[in-house]
Amino acid sequence: MNIPIALLGYGNVGRAFVELVQRKGEALRRDVNLAVTLIGIATKSHGAVIDPDGLDLEAVRRAKALGEPMPTLDFIARCPAAAFLEATSTNPFDGQPALDFVRAALRKGAHVVSANKGPVVFAHRELQALAREKGVGFFFESTVMDGAPVLGVGREGLPGADIRRIRGIFNSTTNLILTLMETAGMAFDAALAETQRLGLAETDPTLDVDGWDASIKTAILANVLMGADLRPADVDRQGIAGIAREDVLEAAKNGERIRLVCEASRAENGRVQARVAPERVPMHGALGSVMGTTSIVEFETDMLPCLTIVEHDPGPMTTAYGMLVDLVNLARGRAQESAE
Amino acid sequence: MNIPIALLGYGNVGRAFVELVQRKGEALRRDVNLAVTLIGIATKSHGAVIDPDGLDLEAVRRAKALGEPMPTLDFIARCPAAAFLEATSTNPFDGQPALDFVRAALRKGAHVVSANKGPVVFAHRELQALAREKGVGFFFESTVMDGAPVLGVGREGLPGADIRRIRGIFNSTTNLILTLMETAGMAFDAALAETQRLGLAETDPTLDVDGWDASIKTAILANVLMGADLRPADVDRQGIAGIAREDVLEAAKNGERIRLVCEASRAENGRVQARVAPERVPMHGALGSVMGTTSIVEFETDMLPCLTIVEHDPGPMTTAYGMLVDLVNLARGRAQESAE
Repeated sequence: MNIPIALLGYGNVGRAFVELVQRKGEALRRDVNLAVTLIGIATKSHGAVIDPDGLDLEAVRRAKALGEPMPTLDFIARCPAAAFLEATSTNPFDGQPALDFVRAALRKGAHVVSANKGPVVFAHRELQALAREKGVGFFFESTVMDGAPVLGVGREGLPGADIRRIRGIFNSTTNLILTLMETAGMAFDAALAETQRLGLAETDPTLDVDGWDASIKTAILANVLMGADLRPADVDRQGIAGIAREDVLEAAKNGERIRLVCEASRAENGRVQARVAPERVPMHGALGSVMGTTSIVEFETDMLPCLTIVEHDPGPMTTAYGMLVDLVNLARGRAQESAE
Repeated sequence: MNIPIALLGYGNVGRAFVELVQRKGEALRRDVNLAVTLIGIATKSHGAVIDPDGLDLEAVRRAKALGEPMPTLDFIARCPAAAFLEATSTNPFDGQPALDFVRAALRKGAHVVSANKGPVVFAHRELQALAREKGVGFFFESTVMDGAPVLGVGREGLPGADIRRIRGIFNSTTNLILTLMETAGMAFDAALAETQRLGLAETDPTLDVDGWDASIKTAILANVLMGADLRPADVDRQGIAGIAREDVLEAAKNGERIRLVCEASRAENGRVQARVAPERVPMHGALGSVMGTTSIVEFETDMLPCLTIVEHDPGPMTTAYGMLVDLVNLARGRAQESAE
């Protein structure tokens, strides 16, 4: 089977994805009988390109500008891709314009893979219903813990189970800041500057530091795996800006670490509540032992008392791999959720 | 969709499975549109029963003897199940007679779910080929880490990835013995007796203590996820019988724990090597922090540097849940491995 695909957005993740298709094309043909052909790329400020016969990946990787500018909605209308991969940056306020891109792609009957959290957190129910109506799929593994199969496990590995609580550490930047404050004795500002120097924090670090990114991911897990319908602002949110080096060192003296803990849980009345806040956790427990950019999620269910997944050292390539996994699973027909 | 199923074996796991079908029947109908109907049970010494309209689950749970004796191969021939669930006990020497049961069920065109490790470790390639030829599936999630989605993640979550090393703790009994030697200061014999009293170790504890169970699970992961073709005896195996309380306490003084570590890795020549042996590991690392009956697996791949899955507190119900997950995924058509 051959699947023609197109990329929306061509930043770090988009470029890593093209490299990945080059590296793994042969393995995918061999292992899952799937040929992935990149036929288009749309960018906001570096033009767009479409070639139904397949782009020259090497040329595309070297290129700075891709072609004439083209509005992305026009690109989606014109490009004959069977799957569009949304890799533009997340708008945490309303998910736009990516939300309109995803709507347009699904409406024309193409699968969508989104590494962009915006459309998922603001319109998961609408977009899944639209995908079902059109007989296509909408997957987004990379939105939470990059390439780690967190949403895939929820989709494939826990049928019939009642997820009572999800708890974890989902934001790499804040975890690295807290790690540096402890292990290198840095003040908050110095640790933040260091994560920026490493290219991990955004230029405007508010989204990480104030817990917005973590809240968006927590809401996605609550909505997709626990049937909730939360927006980022519905998450009870507290960031790490108020934490001083002294707090971190004081916790360490007591065998504890401060971590930005994300949690979604079902209350007795059935409602799902979500919160993100710094917590002191035991240094040697599951969450306390997570250092640097590593992420962790714990699922408490009525079937498995506690199932934990940890992803070490993510980067643009692991995010791109999550998109590739989604693409393979869509091509394998995994969007079909029921047994019929 | 309705799927008529039959159980081979009716011990702890078989009984937990019947309870699970009772508890989760409604959730499966709602969540994945699947009705599971148990139409037969075969046992070695308590008779067999077949009712194509569906057994009375409550009666079956209360029953000691099920019906007239019937050879299991006759039962498989007569029972019109679409899926047979193999839950007899593992024969670590040649996988029999379960291997013949699985062959017979697949040959007649039924899916097979096996919680029994024997058929998988002795004939995985043959049985997968037979299943493909017959257009059915052969799944066995419960054979390694019970209900945790270890094989499911390998099947669905890592397409195209090259698994370089798998490392973990797969045997609950030995891990509990080592835990008791450290935390309760017990000698080896006392700790073993305690696990037997808790119903965790076999009456003949050799399979656990000498590392056979761990070796079988390591070989299964190597064969299924890394393309190897190992038998239990091919695993370089060392048990925990020689470990004294003093060794455990000495390790603890150095911030370490002794764990029965399982490992499969690809050598430079491409061959997969597997070993099971006690190792001193850092107390605060991933493996060292696994206490009691908890299990852990770490996947090192070229795509995700390290992906860890931990399952806490397994029991017959988690094993039964792994079988149910397999059944749901077979009904959803997940046996089809390629995208065609």
